[in-house]
Amino acid sequence: MQFTSEQRLDDGVLEREFTLGGIPGILWTPESESAPAPLILLGHPGGLRTMYPRLAARARHSVAEGFATATIELPGSGDRPRSAAAEQARAELRRALEAGEPVGEEIVDRLVLPLVEKAVPEWQAALDALLSLPGIGGPVGFSGGVISIGIRLAVVEPRIAAAVLFAGSFVPRALFEEARQVTVPLHVLLQWDDEGNDRQAALDLFDAFGSKEKTLNANMGGHTGVPQFAGDAAAQFLTRHLK
Amino acid sequence: MQFTSEQRLDDGVLEREFTLGGIPGILWTPESESAPAPLILLGHPGGLRTMYPRLAARARHSVAEGFATATIELPGSGDRPRSAAAEQARAELRRALEAGEPVGEEIVDRLVLPLVEKAVPEWQAALDALLSLPGIGGPVGFSGGVISIGIRLAVVEPRIAAAVLFAGSFVPRALFEEARQVTVPLHVLLQWDDEGNDRQAALDLFDAFGSKEKTLNANMGGHTGVPQFAGDAAAQFLTRHLK
Repeated sequence: MQFTSEQRLDDGVLEREFTLGGIPGILWTPESESAPAPLILLGHPGGLRTMYPRLAARARHSVAEGFATATIELPGSGDRPRSAAAEQARAELRRALEAGEPVGEEIVDRLVLPLVEKAVPEWQAALDALLSLPGIGGPVGFSGGVISIGIRLAVVEPRIAAAVLFAGSFVPRALFEEARQVTVPLHVLLQWDDEGNDRQAALDLFDAFGSKEKTLNANMGGHTGVPQFAGDAAAQFLTRHLK
Repeated sequence: MQFTSEQRLDDGVLEREFTLGGIPGILWTPESESAPAPLILLGHPGGLRTMYPRLAARARHSVAEGFATATIELPGSGDRPRSAAAEQARAELRRALEAGEPVGEEIVDRLVLPLVEKAVPEWQAALDALLSLPGIGGPVGFSGGVISIGIRLAVVEPRIAAAVLFAGSFVPRALFEEARQVTVPLHVLLQWDDEGNDRQAALDLFDAFGSKEKTLNANMGGHTGVPQFAGDAAAQFLTRHLK
């Protein structure tokens, strides 16, 4: 892990960009480190530069709660090399959505499964590197999307102790089945009027999760319209489980 | 409104029993009244004596947040005269549930509609009396069940500024339609594994509410198993809207 830039934000949060095996990432840490901070991995749909304002806002919020917070670029997003197969599947998905046609499971599989296969080991490698830094301890929470990445991480990575998952993307059947193996406490955010999201599929997925403690927090509005109070409730969930 | 008993609970909360037009009720108020307190009406399924421990716990919680909190007995419950028609409908409902048969809409109508018709004006009369007491101001929130009573109150009573509704009882078709006229902010609690509750009907009802701000907070467990953190989130909702 190599730090490539460092800046102190106006609220004292230290923001550092890094690369890890060629993958760019960002780490936000509290101004003063007393005890090792628990860590939150911020999930996102890909494209760190485009997502930066929203990611930084979420990170500053969680750093203020005493968490170290980090994220990495997804495979095929931002400056990372595109996968021709994924681009092809994405184009087919877009075509189906624009035509108002049902999206075939097979398209979702081709788009999401390789992403999950590739991304999850990268997040685990980031976890190794981040947890070896001074001032960062554990436990670790995952917060955000892509929900399929969150599901796989929660199943295969024992250091993930709790997860906030954003319902709102297509989930392959195989990941839906994996959801039954998730046992960590979950807080699932659902935007009730999410244009690109099948509400019933999101409810079925919530039902499938194996976790004994799981909360569905559904609110009005579209995909990016998560209200402030719902963000606060998700933050309280992480604080309750990780601190 | 006549106070019939008064006791100071160990956390300083003043608990007073009252009757209003022959209907028993309980009022809980903060130890010291500085400014007039906003008011929360605690809904329940009927039977103040049986429900007392849970109602008192909820009330102490909300009084600690600075709310005056009150409840009254429902028609046909506790020491109030039974309605033969309602008892008959209740018996038919129980029979259908025990036989695992679908509960006819007509049974639900006979059980719930007269209850709503009778109870809502009583809650409004209680509101008149409570808001005329020194130390109680407004705004007013409704919190609890019977959800059909909460719906009607939210529609007809402009002093209700926000409501926490417990999904978990049969809702007549007419009340389902009235839900579309509800516009106050709502926080709907749903127990995902509620034995006596049709989950899909609860989700449809949530969808029907006309409120621009509405949150569905669904958690694991049966009817009475609302987790502490979900109760806390509901309390935060009321504080956000009433204080």
